[in-house]
Amino acid sequence: MLREAIYHRPKDNYAYVCTNGELHIQLRTKKNDVKEVILLHGDPYAWADNGWQPTTAPMKKNGSDQLFDYWFIAVAPPFKRLRYGFILTDESESACFTEKGFYSDPPLDDTAYYFSFPFLNNIDIFRAPVWVKNTVWYQIFPERFANGNPDNDPEGTLPWGSTEPTPVNFFGGDLDGVIQHVKYLKDLGISGIYFTPIFKAYSNHKYDTIDYMEIDPQFGTKETFRELIDVCHQNDIKVMLDAVFNHSGFYFPQFQDVLKNGENSRYKDWFYVREFPLVTEPEPNYDTFAFTPFMPKLNTENPEVKEYLLEVGRYWVREFDIDGWRLDVANEVDHAFWRDFRREVKAIKPDVYILGEIWHDAMPWLRGDQFDAVMNYPFTSNILNLFAKQKISAKEFVENMTGFIHMYPRNINEVAFNLVGSHDTPRILTECGEDIERVKQIYTLLLTFIGTPCIYYGDEIGMTGVMDPGCRKCMEWDSAGQNHVLFAHVQKLIRLRRENPLLANEGQLSFIPPEYHESCLAYTKSNGNRAILVVLNTSSIETQYVVPFELRGKTITNLWENEEHVVSGDEFSVVLPGNGFMILEF
Amino acid sequence: MLREAIYHRPKDNYAYVCTNGELHIQLRTKKNDVKEVILLHGDPYAWADNGWQPTTAPMKKNGSDQLFDYWFIAVAPPFKRLRYGFILTDESESACFTEKGFYSDPPLDDTAYYFSFPFLNNIDIFRAPVWVKNTVWYQIFPERFANGNPDNDPEGTLPWGSTEPTPVNFFGGDLDGVIQHVKYLKDLGISGIYFTPIFKAYSNHKYDTIDYMEIDPQFGTKETFRELIDVCHQNDIKVMLDAVFNHSGFYFPQFQDVLKNGENSRYKDWFYVREFPLVTEPEPNYDTFAFTPFMPKLNTENPEVKEYLLEVGRYWVREFDIDGWRLDVANEVDHAFWRDFRREVKAIKPDVYILGEIWHDAMPWLRGDQFDAVMNYPFTSNILNLFAKQKISAKEFVENMTGFIHMYPRNINEVAFNLVGSHDTPRILTECGEDIERVKQIYTLLLTFIGTPCIYYGDEIGMTGVMDPGCRKCMEWDSAGQNHVLFAHVQKLIRLRRENPLLANEGQLSFIPPEYHESCLAYTKSNGNRAILVVLNTSSIETQYVVPFELRGKTITNLWENEEHVVSGDEFSVVLPGNGFMILEF
Repeated sequence: MLREAIYHRPKDNYAYVCTNGELHIQLRTKKNDVKEVILLHGDPYAWADNGWQPTTAPMKKNGSDQLFDYWFIAVAPPFKRLRYGFILTDESESACFTEKGFYSDPPLDDTAYYFSFPFLNNIDIFRAPVWVKNTVWYQIFPERFANGNPDNDPEGTLPWGSTEPTPVNFFGGDLDGVIQHVKYLKDLGISGIYFTPIFKAYSNHKYDTIDYMEIDPQFGTKETFRELIDVCHQNDIKVMLDAVFNHSGFYFPQFQDVLKNGENSRYKDWFYVREFPLVTEPEPNYDTFAFTPFMPKLNTENPEVKEYLLEVGRYWVREFDIDGWRLDVANEVDHAFWRDFRREVKAIKPDVYILGEIWHDAMPWLRGDQFDAVMNYPFTSNILNLFAKQKISAKEFVENMTGFIHMYPRNINEVAFNLVGSHDTPRILTECGEDIERVKQIYTLLLTFIGTPCIYYGDEIGMTGVMDPGCRKCMEWDSAGQNHVLFAHVQKLIRLRRENPLLANEGQLSFIPPEYHESCLAYTKSNGNRAILVVLNTSSIETQYVVPFELRGKTITNLWENEEHVVSGDEFSVVLPGNGFMILEF
Repeated sequence: MLREAIYHRPKDNYAYVCTNGELHIQLRTKKNDVKEVILLHGDPYAWADNGWQPTTAPMKKNGSDQLFDYWFIAVAPPFKRLRYGFILTDESESACFTEKGFYSDPPLDDTAYYFSFPFLNNIDIFRAPVWVKNTVWYQIFPERFANGNPDNDPEGTLPWGSTEPTPVNFFGGDLDGVIQHVKYLKDLGISGIYFTPIFKAYSNHKYDTIDYMEIDPQFGTKETFRELIDVCHQNDIKVMLDAVFNHSGFYFPQFQDVLKNGENSRYKDWFYVREFPLVTEPEPNYDTFAFTPFMPKLNTENPEVKEYLLEVGRYWVREFDIDGWRLDVANEVDHAFWRDFRREVKAIKPDVYILGEIWHDAMPWLRGDQFDAVMNYPFTSNILNLFAKQKISAKEFVENMTGFIHMYPRNINEVAFNLVGSHDTPRILTECGEDIERVKQIYTLLLTFIGTPCIYYGDEIGMTGVMDPGCRKCMEWDSAGQNHVLFAHVQKLIRLRRENPLLANEGQLSFIPPEYHESCLAYTKSNGNRAILVVLNTSSIETQYVVPFELRGKTITNLWENEEHVVSGDEFSVVLPGNGFMILEF
């Protein structure tokens, strides 16, 4: 047994309370090393004359990545307190793994050896808003979605789609444009819109805020925004805004005041200034987003700045009833700020969704006191590497995804914000070399996976575009320029996800071991009674796939074709075309 | 290279900002496997034409436990942001370890592979009160320290020390008794008193509170307590009280009201009642501390209870200027409560010390948002197992301690509450089979180690006692019954610790590899310029110890004997008697 590979540390992803009140416990061992893991557990105060009185329960191997197996169990401690250890058995030995190390037999003279989950306090349970699990998001870059009101076009606005987007040109997209196309979104089937910033700012992307309390005039007014919210809510569409709190824009009046008045500015402590007077060349002498002088970092530790930004957070929830805040560059803002932000906005609207932009391991922000979810970029890269860039095999995909999934508690994975492209990346069709079948596979996976999927505006109709600004083209509203096959594919997947909650987050995800089939990536979503199997042929060559379950006499439904088959023989097999897919229920 | 053993996860003990603003990074590898570790690091936005532009720095092996080596480095990112990976080399290969796994060469086309410490926000730095690092604590169990005022003795009070303590007898110890012996404490040299509970309660130990806002009448009045605080502060002695917030006592009026009125009680939601009416037999049908019906668990999620207890926390700080709160059964109370508790009490007195009673891995409470420290029981067991119970070797002691130390950030270890006995354990002299030399060694270690040491009342004069109630005897004030040699030993160690900040927490702790000497446990505390070497002979046989440093021509000071030696030869050796010790400075 490779003891050095065995890992467990209570809380975080290794021991956490699930929303149903069960305690989930996870253990990591070397891949294909340990044959059996038994959880030894008991109340810390359950003593008899002969020592501590724990009980045992077998754990289940939940999946493997490149190096490790992950073991899982759910338990319900009767008095909400637990001490526990693991009895591991391999080919040659058995050992008890505790917080204090390994023992050949479980020590029962003291509980201090063991791992502790001291008390299952209800208030500490990570709880994201319930609605998020069933939401399909649609990301809108407002300047480029639709121009619904030419009267608010900024000076120099170009005719819609007349030329390629550049970092500085404008096409007049606005909130009226969105309002006018809510029917389109409803038809597609999405249930939430994530807007990149809409507050008054200088650039076309609006990440350089001038006034956090105003709608940018080129997008409309507060009245337009209120109308948009109303229309969306009437259509059961949630609205999430982008909170750019890490930095302001260069033309934020408070920053302009510091530029002008230097040390005498009453806003001098709103930013991180290294020396006065401020200079932007050759490098800014104040902290910024990346190294751009146009985005001075806000000092969120300054109580005045903090109160200002918290009020922004509260204002749009309180006055406009928005449903979510997506937090830009969330990882560079202090944890103390985000704890207060959560408390303040949830006090106004308990089920508001808080989504952080974090590209790396985000566990420190997902402990229940800060965010509900983060943007799931590791998911994005893994999908792109398999289907678009074809850099990894289906096996590697499964191993990577298994690793990511086991980095977080299950209730966090259910609300992860899964995306395959955004205003910051090349468009998915472009990434796929314009191979529409691969894009279909990507959407099939995205919309049958755990987490909450997001579609970047226009991707559903086959728009193309390289890295920004290329991916920020004007939405194609001319039917002749839209890919209707792709639209219908995405639309059908959204409908299936809505009609089959197993496809969303009611089902527990399990990958079919990737060794089972050379080219097919397959996974089930199951609740113990029913299961849905998704199979994706990652090769361009047709292949046969034998469903790896005992199904004799059962009825299998092909959900995509809406066909039923009664399994008569010993096995049930399907033929998948090159880059094809199959969604079966049984 | 054993890849499965290699572990790092940002934040917590693996990447944290130290109080001096440096970022500390730690890596774990299999013991004696990796020869060299280089940190590859850079600003996430530091890009050139040919890719990301990181730099490199060698890491230092900081120690080893049974299975692992721990590597350490301190870095100061110029723009407070860091992406990083590790280049590891063993006998046969070199590999780059990142958040996304292992690569033969560091990938430079993207920073998303790497671990991230996104921004060194000052407000998120774990900061315990500065004074704690230099404090030597003295724990007083008030009923048994000194009876200074017979007028407040409870009915049935027994003559001081006239009989053995039982769970129910009383000897009349009180706050006046402490006031009258502050001179004794000052003479010993301690600088902080930790009082077990002093609020109105039923038992002699007072962990079953009746009124959190009153001093127990048998201990005195609020006026007595104010006088005690004044006397202590005049003598530079801090005062820490015990907050028993996990549960109340059975005679807490709010609980009595629920007992009496059941579902109709206005306090019914102050506790976790499983069914009405309440019964205590055969088992309580409400949550309790352990399974004792006399300590009903308080529902700290109930806003009314929370506000009540927060006001208790504030009241004694605000009105009496206490310096610390020790939190009883802290691990079973919710994290949300402790976050608010910290905010509230620190708002009144920023340098109040918050110490949690947690016996197991306490990282989830030590992230800067809850406690300043926990009671260091793993330290206690390790010391007892080596010196008292003689169950482990010096080598095992070093391995265990190295493991514990690397579970936490350095700034947390500096304020860990180190104890070798308390009102809940047998006394240290009893644990040592009444071998006074072993007790002296234990104090030598306790008072030269990192962390903040605590002496349990009477242990310094050689009191004995088995597990409670045996360890709660009346303090021996008769000079003839006191061990003056032991007192002088402890007194001298406290003075040396005060005069040599390296012995407290100014010095960085390093163990001499335990393989170096069969029976001697040795470690240095050093600041780079000066070092103090502590050597403890764990055998009862005299031994020679060659100081494992190049010291030719240097002057060595024997701090204990206050003697200087100039090293003339190639090596410097000392002779340690059986169970002896040596403290050398050079």
